[in-house]
Amino acid sequence: MNNISILGSTGSIGTQTLDIVRDNPDDFNVVALAVRSNADMLLKQIEEFKPSLVCVYDEAVAVDIKDRIKEDVTLVTGMDGLIECAVIDSADMVVGAVVGMIGVRPVIEAIKAGKDIALANKESLVTAGHIIMPLAEEKNVSILPVDSEHSAIYQALHGENRKALSKILLTASGGPFRGRKREELVNVKVEDALNHPNWSMGKKITIDSATMVNKGLEVMEAGWLFDTDIDNIQVLIQPQSVIHSMVEFVDGSIIAQLGTPDMRLPIQYAMYYGQRVYLKGDRLDFAAISHIDFEEPDPETFEGLKLAFEAAKLGGTMPTVYNAANEYAVAKFLNREIGFLDITSTIRNMMDRHIVIADPDVDTILSVEQDVYSMINNMKG
Amino acid sequence: MNNISILGSTGSIGTQTLDIVRDNPDDFNVVALAVRSNADMLLKQIEEFKPSLVCVYDEAVAVDIKDRIKEDVTLVTGMDGLIECAVIDSADMVVGAVVGMIGVRPVIEAIKAGKDIALANKESLVTAGHIIMPLAEEKNVSILPVDSEHSAIYQALHGENRKALSKILLTASGGPFRGRKREELVNVKVEDALNHPNWSMGKKITIDSATMVNKGLEVMEAGWLFDTDIDNIQVLIQPQSVIHSMVEFVDGSIIAQLGTPDMRLPIQYAMYYGQRVYLKGDRLDFAAISHIDFEEPDPETFEGLKLAFEAAKLGGTMPTVYNAANEYAVAKFLNREIGFLDITSTIRNMMDRHIVIADPDVDTILSVEQDVYSMINNMKG
Repeated sequence: MNNISILGSTGSIGTQTLDIVRDNPDDFNVVALAVRSNADMLLKQIEEFKPSLVCVYDEAVAVDIKDRIKEDVTLVTGMDGLIECAVIDSADMVVGAVVGMIGVRPVIEAIKAGKDIALANKESLVTAGHIIMPLAEEKNVSILPVDSEHSAIYQALHGENRKALSKILLTASGGPFRGRKREELVNVKVEDALNHPNWSMGKKITIDSATMVNKGLEVMEAGWLFDTDIDNIQVLIQPQSVIHSMVEFVDGSIIAQLGTPDMRLPIQYAMYYGQRVYLKGDRLDFAAISHIDFEEPDPETFEGLKLAFEAAKLGGTMPTVYNAANEYAVAKFLNREIGFLDITSTIRNMMDRHIVIADPDVDTILSVEQDVYSMINNMKG
Repeated sequence: MNNISILGSTGSIGTQTLDIVRDNPDDFNVVALAVRSNADMLLKQIEEFKPSLVCVYDEAVAVDIKDRIKEDVTLVTGMDGLIECAVIDSADMVVGAVVGMIGVRPVIEAIKAGKDIALANKESLVTAGHIIMPLAEEKNVSILPVDSEHSAIYQALHGENRKALSKILLTASGGPFRGRKREELVNVKVEDALNHPNWSMGKKITIDSATMVNKGLEVMEAGWLFDTDIDNIQVLIQPQSVIHSMVEFVDGSIIAQLGTPDMRLPIQYAMYYGQRVYLKGDRLDFAAISHIDFEEPDPETFEGLKLAFEAAKLGGTMPTVYNAANEYAVAKFLNREIGFLDITSTIRNMMDRHIVIADPDVDTILSVEQDVYSMINNMKG
């Protein structure tokens, strides 16, 4: 029995994590749930999964929900509450499924508390990989990737000598705007960008997929997770999203992981620590797929990808600037305040203005995040 | 240092095995070489690799070569000589690279002598898998596949729990006649059939690839090597020969092994017991490949594949009949005595006439082989 705490239980990854728990009641027990503000869904989850602790990050919603909880459960709120869920004694594993830099502190605290991490929150590794990876090693904590790409790499490396790894081939669908030229993306609407061809995901990550900033974040994340030089990571467009990623070894052999676009597979694989357990669902039918295509990403149209490699090489606080600028710009785009191409030009502007601080601690990372937000606001003011 | 004995050192697999030895002189030492009749090449190999024992299977050639050997090496001949090379005390590993049923006895004797086997000789497992696999387990001997497909499956299963395997996807190029209808193959010439699109191989195996009998043999071999029900093996046409094979697990995840069409990779992987060592050569360039296609094999045109599944399910001596009928028919085709489609109709005829003997010993297997040869001869006579 694996006792789990889910940070972000009402999001796309969170609800699918609970699907796995529901299908395997003998293997998993939910001890804590944390959400930002979705009270109605949380109430249903409390009723079904009976956690002992829940966090509603938004204080106003927490106050509001207090009297509606019938079960015997402790309610906490804010960052302190989120961290309480991350370090709760009874948990063996924390599923880090919150979106954004809000996940950094709870993930670090969970590792300090010796919890294994099923990690979907990209931002933790992107901004604080230099803190998280050595800490996880020190605390003998497993970081199990939940992203389909990183899970694919993890699966492909299973049982292999990491020193024999020569290259990571991180696949990308290319998103809804694959094949378009930069000038064709000037007038892209929110609806167009939310229309991903293969995957059904949250809004933020769907926009990140359309700009390919998501792939940029994944490149940085892969660098940390697999201790790989950023130049040994190649992004490969594979529009059908059938190959979830590949690794190349020193002997030229390539191991790939393939599957249907179903996030439950990487979630379950992480939850079971790489043990393979039956998962109901469709299987790949290659004759029906008929072909898989490959192409190189276009660095002009998808400038966000190029900037990610730059940010990763500069290191220190630069990935935080990259990520924070993107986070804020995507929110503004979703709010129809800026255009689609303004997302990556905002990232570029913020990176151009930033002077890298090497080896930043968490406070520095989070204060750089706030600085970036203020700077973007002032630019617009 | 791995001391190896190579059975079939002048063939396609044998010479590439020696390429690996040449490139890694600190890791390998050749103690024995066995050939059918290629004296000139053997003399060069003796000079370069300095084995202590060589076998020339063909007695006339052996007599002829005796005085031409300058090195201090013991020369043996015939099946006894081949077996001497297979069981030589100084060998840790035997590379079973002879083509045809001639390999069955030496492989079994090598296992009895406790030698690990790098196995390229399909016929041993096809005809005597029921003897070889339990014997290897009893003697704690590793059977390391050298075929690119079986090596791919072996690599994909590396570190995984075999019980989680749900399906093997054995890929096939489809050979030079992929997409043709049965009636289009009536007048196929030897030259057409020898023209394989992707792989450079020996003559026998190239014809077997054109009929897809090779894939049929591989299906049977995979069943033994990976202890898999034949119905859980699916043959998938993948004309580019980029994906060397795949496995599907109970969670729906698929692990594939890919690479350039270079036999040195599976040979080296077997010789190093699955340890990955740098191998010079081209690497896959996916953007240049641009796409991988998939299709189901056509069971009417490639009847040999269908017959293989039938033979495997009937078991006992039937795979021997399948293989012996094919071996003899291919020799006749290469000798321009019969037409291309006669190869598989010969197999079908011989299978129709045969009454299966369950759990045959090696003598029975080899006597059934001889019976099949006689029957084919009598049919023509």
